[in-house]
Amino acid sequence: MNAAELHQDSIVIDGLVIAKWDRDLFEDMRRGGLTAANCTVSVWEGFQATVDNIVKFNQMMEANSDLLRPVLSTRDIRRAKEEGKTGIIYGFQNAHAFEDQIGYVEIFKKLGVGIVQMCYNTQNLVGTGCYERDGGLSGFGREIVAEMNRVGVMCDLSHVGSKTSEEVILESKKPVCYSHCLPYGLKAHPRNKSDEELKFIADHGGFVGVTMFAPFLAKGIDSTIDDYVEAIAYVMNIVGEDAIGIGTDFTQGHGHDFFEWLTHDKGYARRLTNFGKIVNPLGIRTLGEFPNLTEALLKHGFSERQVRKIMGENWVRILADVWGE
Amino acid sequence: MNAAELHQDSIVIDGLVIAKWDRDLFEDMRRGGLTAANCTVSVWEGFQATVDNIVKFNQMMEANSDLLRPVLSTRDIRRAKEEGKTGIIYGFQNAHAFEDQIGYVEIFKKLGVGIVQMCYNTQNLVGTGCYERDGGLSGFGREIVAEMNRVGVMCDLSHVGSKTSEEVILESKKPVCYSHCLPYGLKAHPRNKSDEELKFIADHGGFVGVTMFAPFLAKGIDSTIDDYVEAIAYVMNIVGEDAIGIGTDFTQGHGHDFFEWLTHDKGYARRLTNFGKIVNPLGIRTLGEFPNLTEALLKHGFSERQVRKIMGENWVRILADVWGE
Repeated sequence: MNAAELHQDSIVIDGLVIAKWDRDLFEDMRRGGLTAANCTVSVWEGFQATVDNIVKFNQMMEANSDLLRPVLSTRDIRRAKEEGKTGIIYGFQNAHAFEDQIGYVEIFKKLGVGIVQMCYNTQNLVGTGCYERDGGLSGFGREIVAEMNRVGVMCDLSHVGSKTSEEVILESKKPVCYSHCLPYGLKAHPRNKSDEELKFIADHGGFVGVTMFAPFLAKGIDSTIDDYVEAIAYVMNIVGEDAIGIGTDFTQGHGHDFFEWLTHDKGYARRLTNFGKIVNPLGIRTLGEFPNLTEALLKHGFSERQVRKIMGENWVRILADVWGE
Repeated sequence: MNAAELHQDSIVIDGLVIAKWDRDLFEDMRRGGLTAANCTVSVWEGFQATVDNIVKFNQMMEANSDLLRPVLSTRDIRRAKEEGKTGIIYGFQNAHAFEDQIGYVEIFKKLGVGIVQMCYNTQNLVGTGCYERDGGLSGFGREIVAEMNRVGVMCDLSHVGSKTSEEVILESKKPVCYSHCLPYGLKAHPRNKSDEELKFIADHGGFVGVTMFAPFLAKGIDSTIDDYVEAIAYVMNIVGEDAIGIGTDFTQGHGHDFFEWLTHDKGYARRLTNFGKIVNPLGIRTLGEFPNLTEALLKHGFSERQVRKIMGENWVRILADVWGE
């Protein structure tokens, strides 16, 4: 089976997409052979604004149902594969949308939210993000983790501070993930994870999706798909071939205002970081180029079995564990 | 001047009242000779629910304007004294009502909110309360402190954790307070403040209101007004006679459900503490018995000048500094 055939045959999961939603994006997802993607529906928004986002996304799902299907279970991922559609998992990058209501976890689960990052860059009611001093998981945060375990929502720790992350890993009775991260060992950056952190999550049954977001790669915007594959190999060497997957962090379609919103606390308060120019690695600049990743992984020397795991099978297995279906 | 005359002549400020609002309460305030009180309008509520509380309180202020007047400046406190009314300062016990909007600080200031406690018992976006591990003042919290300084809202730290408190004291360019606290030196309790904490706030230009809430007093519900005076003397010995005042924490009129709401995180989540039976110290069981406090302070040996300071003059001076008028 050549690279193109393998990609065509594989389940391909992107653990984090925060691209601008329009038909062009959905067509590009199909071009890339994406079986399913965790698409961000909340970052800084509170409860009601998040529901409003979901309403808009639901309308676009309906209008583009020839290309997309909602994913509420791993059965839906397999159905998407059979139908040749891209399955959409709704995800939060911030538990802020739960506000102060533990009961909102289940409300959002019913609305299709299957993965929730505990904090986005800064402190919320649950814990603290990776761009400020981190006091750890709060008492309320422990109750939120328990509720996410109970109703089947995966805890994501990508933008979460080191101490809060460690405590969520220990607190959760279900596997947790860094859905989209890079190793600190390849570039020292507050968003990247140390070897110890990568080992810790894997040792506790967790999962790591590897991103290719240029500001966190050693070569920045001069990176190529081979640098991305190098990062994947680096992470796999620590976490093993069953605890690794893809989480690109594709932002395609968004402009300057969106990144200004992302990089300020609450979307408008103090500046937390400045990405500068964002260019995805050569060879995987858009979702449509996803087949190049399968090819680059094979070229790097990964076996077909390993490529299938990295590209999506591991994600499906771990999601089935967390979601219970 | 005897005790009754002195009380009648003094400015009497209660730095914290969280009693049930009705005409009986307002009449009792007048009976007690209260010139002004910081009355809690938000604990666990978010923005809109807090505005709704203020709407209800405003209606009651209007309906009882023969007894009450709103306090937006220290001029209003002096006017209340002249008119023989009780001035009402609106206060929060939790910055939670600011939600994620720095701009809400000024909105609430315009609505009459002059004192805001940064956290109530647990973690919020600003910092952490005194009933859980405290990671300190968040980056957003620093922005909130700056905005409170700018628009003239006093930072209250009574229910705030030790680390967050210390950092607010250092961050604020205006005096901050423990509006209602007791010394840890007289009873070891997470809500009580150590000698070091009392000294630290005073050394940084801050202020301490002393409460008489039975669960935090050594003799609990068997305490008398003399135990309250002993606590006042203890605190004054540390902070000096210019940085001390009264903050009773009167809860009169409230029933079991209210205390259940107070003692659970967010009003409903995990239990944080259990007060047991609440009986105010003999001699000062209701606001109407406030004159007994002036008498007990004199009996304890405080001078008339000191009693006037403790009973209200110090509060007026520090509020004028924070509010700028």
